Amino acid sequence: MEPTGKDKKEQSGWGPTVWANLTAVRDKSPLIQCITNFVSMDLVANTLLSAGASPAMLHSVEEIPDFTPQVGALYVNVGTLSADWLPAMKTAARLASQLGKPWVLDPVAAGASGFRLKACLELVALRPTVIRGNASEIIALSDASVGPTKGVDSSHESMDAMEAAKCLAEASGSIVAVSGAVDIITDGKTVVGVHNGVPMLQRITATGCSVTALIAAFVAVDPLHALEATASALSIFGIAGEMGMDIAKGPASLRIHMIDSLYSLDQAVVLSRVNIAGFS
Amino acid sequence: MEPTGKDKKEQSGWGPTVWANLTAVRDKSPLIQCITNFVSMDLVANTLLSAGASPAMLHSVEEIPDFTPQVGALYVNVGTLSADWLPAMKTAARLASQLGKPWVLDPVAAGASGFRLKACLELVALRPTVIRGNASEIIALSDASVGPTKGVDSSHESMDAMEAAKCLAEASGSIVAVSGAVDIITDGKTVVGVHNGVPMLQRITATGCSVTALIAAFVAVDPLHALEATASALSIFGIAGEMGMDIAKGPASLRIHMIDSLYSLDQAVVLSRVNIAGFS
Amino acid sequence: MEPTGKDKKEQSGWGPTVWANLTAVRDKSPLIQCITNFVSMDLVANTLLSAGASPAMLHSVEEIPDFTPQVGALYVNVGTLSADWLPAMKTAARLASQLGKPWVLDPVAAGASGFRLKACLELVALRPTVIRGNASEIIALSDASVGPTKGVDSSHESMDAMEAAKCLAEASGSIVAVSGAVDIITDGKTVVGVHNGVPMLQRITATGCSVTALIAAFVAVDPLHALEATASALSIFGIAGEMGMDIAKGPASLRIHMIDSLYSLDQAVVLSRVNIAGFS
Repeated sequence: MEPTGKDKKEQSGWGPTVWANLTAVRDKSPLIQCITNFVSMDLVANTLLSAGASPAMLHSVEEIPDFTPQVGALYVNVGTLSADWLPAMKTAARLASQLGKPWVLDPVAAGASGFRLKACLELVALRPTVIRGNASEIIALSDASVGPTKGVDSSHESMDAMEAAKCLAEASGSIVAVSGAVDIITDGKTVVGVHNGVPMLQRITATGCSVTALIAAFVAVDPLHALEATASALSIFGIAGEMGMDIAKGPASLRIHMIDSLYSLDQAVVLSRVNIAGFS
Repeated sequence: MEPTGKDKKEQSGWGPTVWANLTAVRDKSPLIQCITNFVSMDLVANTLLSAGASPAMLHSVEEIPDFTPQVGALYVNVGTLSADWLPAMKTAARLASQLGKPWVLDPVAAGASGFRLKACLELVALRPTVIRGNASEIIALSDASVGPTKGVDSSHESMDAMEAAKCLAEASGSIVAVSGAVDIITDGKTVVGVHNGVPMLQRITATGCSVTALIAAFVAVDPLHALEATASALSIFGIAGEMGMDIAKGPASLRIHMIDSLYSLDQAVVLSRVNIAGFS
Repeated sequence: MEPTGKDKKEQSGWGPTVWANLTAVRDKSPLIQCITNFVSMDLVANTLLSAGASPAMLHSVEEIPDFTPQVGALYVNVGTLSADWLPAMKTAARLASQLGKPWVLDPVAAGASGFRLKACLELVALRPTVIRGNASEIIALSDASVGPTKGVDSSHESMDAMEAAKCLAEASGSIVAVSGAVDIITDGKTVVGVHNGVPMLQRITATGCSVTALIAAFVAVDPLHALEATASALSIFGIAGEMGMDIAKGPASLRIHMIDSLYSLDQAVVLSRVNIAGFS
């Protein structure tokens, strides 16, 4: 019996786990159904293609019964949410859960409106394998799910986010990832931090959406170790950003070089750059 | 009391006004709600991010009452218009006007169909702060609003456009901008021309949509001087195009270099390149 | 009387035909109505602009009676199909056929669901001038139209695709193009192969959608020789990819360099690189 992702990590650190996960995505080319926002579709698809996965943007409720059973994972992103898209998101998520297929939620701007927050909570109730958002999105979801976590004296957003992430993970049963200067990933008990990436990624639209799609591809190839797969995807995307930043002259060229780098990342670069650590 | 944008311009020309407006966008990072066409969403978002603003693509009518009150400005673009998107455009525009928030209209292909022209006129009636289009779009709107401006002997499109822009501005109360080899901006009386930009921008989709989004960001930070803010945004976008053109090898690399340039424009470049003049 | 596209080809090979077609697109700048999927809109529009054509993304059923009569060709792509877009696709296709205007169908993922296959067959019944897909899409359409073509012993996908393409072309009256390592184009009797292009194009989203849009532009300028126009567009797109590949560092930079190359392709490059041959 081969060592699992987690066992390998404990033997030799995160580098080999991350590399093994990227290699599995390249080898298996998992089909990822994306129901994502209009802004992100181009970069999401190109991120998945460059990583070796196969994106499929299908969002019509009529097609889900035929198509969703064929996919390796489902990705749902509520960025340009509207009432006519929500039923397909819920139908696909429910079917994925029923079929035991991993699915990943990006609750973009969860707190921007009552309509959106309600939609996100309904999706969370359908048991996503992973939820990834920024601090304010995760805090909004956690506060709405299990009550405010922010203490009277609290002023440290990343600490708030970590508490919110742990509460949301416990309440939902999902792996919860919070993007930031350090990405936080937790199952409610274990917490790991991914230190890869560069700040300029925030000046490119849809990078958050795209790394969440990449999480779906990584979880598709190792669904039993969703925390490790999530951390691996965040690390790989961050490393591609670091490599791109070496030659970028601004956000637009960074986007190009990041995708090029993601396509050609090799083992030596991955092993030398993976920067993941537990919180203790 | 600090001099206003207009006073500063009169003291020392347009350069300092344009630079002050760009600096204000970078400092204040205004939240810009974009209800724009599918083709343009990626470039619009990246243009706003590179300029320092915060784009939010929210178009569902259910979210507007909660969200639109939070934004710095609203941008409405009818490029891929359909009957199911029009109510959100009108609801958001009406709310922005009621709240005294600036909003900007891009009447893409206004004359392409009766349905589209009617929709554009309904939006114009909701009093946009700024309307930006190309010559044929502004002429179509002006003709439909106040009757044909084209004389029997007229054969000079840019002169037609200027007359149409002035008529439309007077009739609507909006600042009207007409993109072309020289961009024309008018409040119905004063007319200024922006001479920045390069012709190859016309071979990149959504550059017109994106500069209109940039106008929304500039108007958000100086709503009391919408004509100056509009001219500033057009000049900055044109300068970014000029800088990009220095190293571009075609339309796709121009798009990349333009966004990179927009991100890193500094005071010396802006002051030396701003090319705005009144018409007399 | 000038020699037609076909006569010119027979006199001096494919190079002059392809170059003449590209020149005609640049000179006439045909207006191409695109009803295409969300993922592809940016690259489709930029491909058409770089080739010299004029894209117009209009998909609302209310606008079709006014707008479609003005276009040079119609392009319909079912990538992100939904029940609310299908009526516009069919209305526009029916009107184009009635007006004698060329229209081109991209049956993306035709076999992915029963809903999608039925929609594609309904569109095929509206007599597209050209249908372009990959092997599995064309086989799915052919099998559903005229019964399975795959023999018991058949294991050679490209041979299956050629048979399927010929059957579908005969049954539909359309030119059928199958993208692959060698692109196959047939009217049911004549079969030609286009050998231009590079494998990495498959790692960029919407390149298939974009070359189909380019086919629409080429057919718009030479509707009486749709097979030649289709082969020309596939060759030009492939050559642009080859030129881009010379300096690309991955899929994202290939996309940029390909569009730049498409914009600036000159006669010497086209004549030296066109690689089209009949099958005998």
